Amino acid sequence: MSERIEVESDSHSYPVLLENGLRYSFYHLLEDILPDHTKLMIIADETAASYYLEDLLASFPDSAKPVVTILPSGETSKSMVQYERLLTECLQEGLDRKSVIAALGGGVAGDIAGFTAATYMRGIRYVQIPTTLLAHDSSVGGKTGINHPLGKNMIGAFHAPSAVLYDPEMLISLPEKEWRSGFAEVIKHAFISSPEFFVWLQNHVHKLSSVDPSTLEKMLKKSIETKVAVVQEDEREAGVRAHLNFGHTLGHAIEAELGYGKTTHGEAVAVGMIFAMRLSEKFYGIKLPIEETVKYLEKLGYYLKLQKQVNAEKLLFIMKRDKKASGGSMRFVLLPELGRAELVDIREEMVLDLLEEEELT
Amino acid sequence: MSERIEVESDSHSYPVLLENGLRYSFYHLLEDILPDHTKLMIIADETAASYYLEDLLASFPDSAKPVVTILPSGETSKSMVQYERLLTECLQEGLDRKSVIAALGGGVAGDIAGFTAATYMRGIRYVQIPTTLLAHDSSVGGKTGINHPLGKNMIGAFHAPSAVLYDPEMLISLPEKEWRSGFAEVIKHAFISSPEFFVWLQNHVHKLSSVDPSTLEKMLKKSIETKVAVVQEDEREAGVRAHLNFGHTLGHAIEAELGYGKTTHGEAVAVGMIFAMRLSEKFYGIKLPIEETVKYLEKLGYYLKLQKQVNAEKLLFIMKRDKKASGGSMRFVLLPELGRAELVDIREEMVLDLLEEEELT
Repeated sequence: MSERIEVESDSHSYPVLLENGLRYSFYHLLEDILPDHTKLMIIADETAASYYLEDLLASFPDSAKPVVTILPSGETSKSMVQYERLLTECLQEGLDRKSVIAALGGGVAGDIAGFTAATYMRGIRYVQIPTTLLAHDSSVGGKTGINHPLGKNMIGAFHAPSAVLYDPEMLISLPEKEWRSGFAEVIKHAFISSPEFFVWLQNHVHKLSSVDPSTLEKMLKKSIETKVAVVQEDEREAGVRAHLNFGHTLGHAIEAELGYGKTTHGEAVAVGMIFAMRLSEKFYGIKLPIEETVKYLEKLGYYLKLQKQVNAEKLLFIMKRDKKASGGSMRFVLLPELGRAELVDIREEMVLDLLEEEELT
Repeated sequence: MSERIEVESDSHSYPVLLENGLRYSFYHLLEDILPDHTKLMIIADETAASYYLEDLLASFPDSAKPVVTILPSGETSKSMVQYERLLTECLQEGLDRKSVIAALGGGVAGDIAGFTAATYMRGIRYVQIPTTLLAHDSSVGGKTGINHPLGKNMIGAFHAPSAVLYDPEMLISLPEKEWRSGFAEVIKHAFISSPEFFVWLQNHVHKLSSVDPSTLEKMLKKSIETKVAVVQEDEREAGVRAHLNFGHTLGHAIEAELGYGKTTHGEAVAVGMIFAMRLSEKFYGIKLPIEETVKYLEKLGYYLKLQKQVNAEKLLFIMKRDKKASGGSMRFVLLPELGRAELVDIREEMVLDLLEEEELT
């Protein structure tokens, strides 16, 4: 089975292809999609490379083997040092303006490879070959970047890929914590766009390490379609794209405070989503299925008590820095109802009160 | 007197304002053009700052003084090290997505400040305040970037400014070699678009250190309009924008070989233009006013024998690397007639022969 989702970006449209075993025909797909390209450089996450690089390379004829460079696994690779090294390799390998970069790996490989492509010779094309569940989210939409010691993703560019080539079979090698990390974004897409999708997930996904292939494909398709709908409407995050930050305001603060890579992104986001739901209940005076969500997430192995380990005032400070609070209020993505998100200005004290409550429970 | 040229970029339109004394009202201009901006950071070239920073700052009320950071003068500042330092300062000073960067200086300050703006938080706005003649060219069109040890401008992005605020009075402090550097681009604009403009220049500009204010303003306006017409048609250099590289293929090779900063950009480009004219004569079998141009340039103080100092084969090697020759030919911008440019594939031997001839004369 195979799925194709077309994405319109500001500068061009590109396909997201979902297909089991797609990695074996990578060479032909690339020739089809970018027939005029010159050199290809694959920037491969070390772990992903150990599983799948050979499969990808086997699809190339001997006369057209690509250049390959390996990126150490982990968030610390999204650094200025690695970025500079990749640019140097592009130059040493003679990549020109018609060359293509392919990112094999998760969000880290996609982000730094995309940023390298965005800024090499003022921008060359790149394709994403996501190998994690989390990357179903990050590979679509054209956000690229690296981290700065003072903040995550602070250096970057909007640069849409020329294709996202997603082979769900590659997800089977993922450790369970990586499933949890990615699944948080799937749930997020359900929460901000479709209560039915949340029900479907509860009915079909009971254990993250053993999602059957057809469920996985449906889930990926639905989740990617939500992301695509949002980024097509607002590629540069002037409006609704901010809704995708649901759960991320606190999530990022937790990650920053614990140190990037010490928790998974998704686990921090899961905690952030529960928090944003509680805040939504307070702010709008409504009821959301929080207990049900907590139960579901805990059944799937999420550890939701992360936030208790970190000081409420510290978290507020980090969130304010990121979200440029003005005059005692800060911006938060909340849910006026399940399936619909809204960006609202919320008083700092309300946020702090709730953070402090959570610390104690 | 004041001139306003409106430029359409892919993402927005922006004004180029030409006005003597404009620097004294910088604060009000910025408030007019970007009323919703938060913080402002001025990235100022050291030399330009010593002359004009005080004037700029005097326009701000005490309650709204901008952040200022100084960039050492010279091409070596377009480095990864300076880029990283500027990003760090943006973060330390708390610049957010609605903040603005202003570049005070020549092409170096504009390029690195623009690239910093292009990649800080995936792109914030910036304005150019050019203080050199050369920057009348580089400040328009949205090319930003820094150098890599393996190549000039190899790292960068297309990111159009929100305004170019040009105060020609600031050019009076320029040393004569900087006038020569910038004037080469003025002549280039005449050569690729308007033989009448070339005649006008010959009649009005006789000595570069003493161009009278009204001639200067007319010259800037005409030269900027040529640049604007080209970049509006082809912002991302897919086609006609390449014509702006007239004289630059050899010019860049000379700069690279002598070491960036050892010659001025314009002097190298002047040599490159004469060479490209000779090549055009050979290629098309036509006559161009080469002797007239050489005489005019020499009268203005250009040293046109630069190229004799460098080995022909070495220059060819560098040009091929930059211009990705394919199958024994390379791309060159030539003039089928004065006032019209064309990108052509030309055999390497023809280029080498002419380079070797020049070496001997």
